[in-house]
Amino acid sequence: MSYVTADMAVSLDGYTAGLGQTLETPFGEGALEPLTSWMQEDENAPEVAAVVGAQAYIMGRNMFGPDRGEFDLDWQGWWGPEPPYHAPVFVLSHHEREPLVLQGTTFTFVTEGIERALELAREVAGPDGRIDIAGGACTVNQYLAAGHVDELRLHICPVVLGAGERLSVGVEGFRLEQLGGRVASSVVHVRYRVIHTSA
Amino acid sequence: MSYVTADMAVSLDGYTAGLGQTLETPFGEGALEPLTSWMQEDENAPEVAAVVGAQAYIMGRNMFGPDRGEFDLDWQGWWGPEPPYHAPVFVLSHHEREPLVLQGTTFTFVTEGIERALELAREVAGPDGRIDIAGGACTVNQYLAAGHVDELRLHICPVVLGAGERLSVGVEGFRLEQLGGRVASSVVHVRYRVIHTSA
Repeated sequence: MSYVTADMAVSLDGYTAGLGQTLETPFGEGALEPLTSWMQEDENAPEVAAVVGAQAYIMGRNMFGPDRGEFDLDWQGWWGPEPPYHAPVFVLSHHEREPLVLQGTTFTFVTEGIERALELAREVAGPDGRIDIAGGACTVNQYLAAGHVDELRLHICPVVLGAGERLSVGVEGFRLEQLGGRVASSVVHVRYRVIHTSA
Repeated sequence: MSYVTADMAVSLDGYTAGLGQTLETPFGEGALEPLTSWMQEDENAPEVAAVVGAQAYIMGRNMFGPDRGEFDLDWQGWWGPEPPYHAPVFVLSHHEREPLVLQGTTFTFVTEGIERALELAREVAGPDGRIDIAGGACTVNQYLAAGHVDELRLHICPVVLGAGERLSVGVEGFRLEQLGGRVASSVVHVRYRVIHTSA
């Protein structure tokens, strides 16, 4: 069965985004630079390659865009015409939208919930493929709570945010086993096996 | 001037203790083993040696013991007759108590606040010495807020606690610069320079 990872940049206090996500502040106030600057550093190319090396992706609607409610059809995601994801992306949403085909990927909007999105992702990833839950925290937390995440890959950034969207809020029934990682210059990469202790 | 470090074991969501600290659960519910087991592993001896290698320590009263209010004079700390601290320890408290002399260290109880405790610690550590703020989070947060911490040394443990006492709650006016660290088998050690951006 395909392997499910969740990759997230987190602050030292476990936040994956600050408060107040908007078009101008996709990670919320004051969080974009501290949580993403490592991605631009050559030194972290292996971890960035791992982030974008899955065979299918699932993300929450808020990670796809800043609009809420009915989709703004002019919005094509944060990433421009050629997103870094070179595999199908399934976007969880309460609103319907036709698939959006961009260079190298297609965004498919799934309104039937997390189980259905995972089923669709497993179909395209295949039994030996990897599915990455790309975020945000709310989406990762739902898959954690449902017992579907095999590995959590954190990129721990040197910042304390104090408020925002947070890893594993209200999620019980799992424990973590550290698999490995490395301390880079301005970020710490760590991988954890997720051991689900209750269904 | 003496160098001030703060050493803390933290969960992935920034907690340094769970809820419900008692005599039986000094780190609160479910937090003792996940936050401290690394200290018993040979591999982490260098970091443990660094923790206990300061020339003076400051800790909060709750780190010294589980009792609250007037001191229980029979209580001599969590550590038995020979504590791991081989240097003077200053314990912040709202209640007076005579100094407690144990093997290798003396616990001095300071009721005049964090500035006075730091002054006393600087006197014994000397200009080239190091003072470690040993915890808990509440005490470290007070020194962070007052602009006195030069270096934060975190030992990031593979656990999510979700509630408890937390790093840097309500502390503003500082940013962190990652200095270095290493990924051990079951914990990640990382050191950060604290850059105080407001007094």
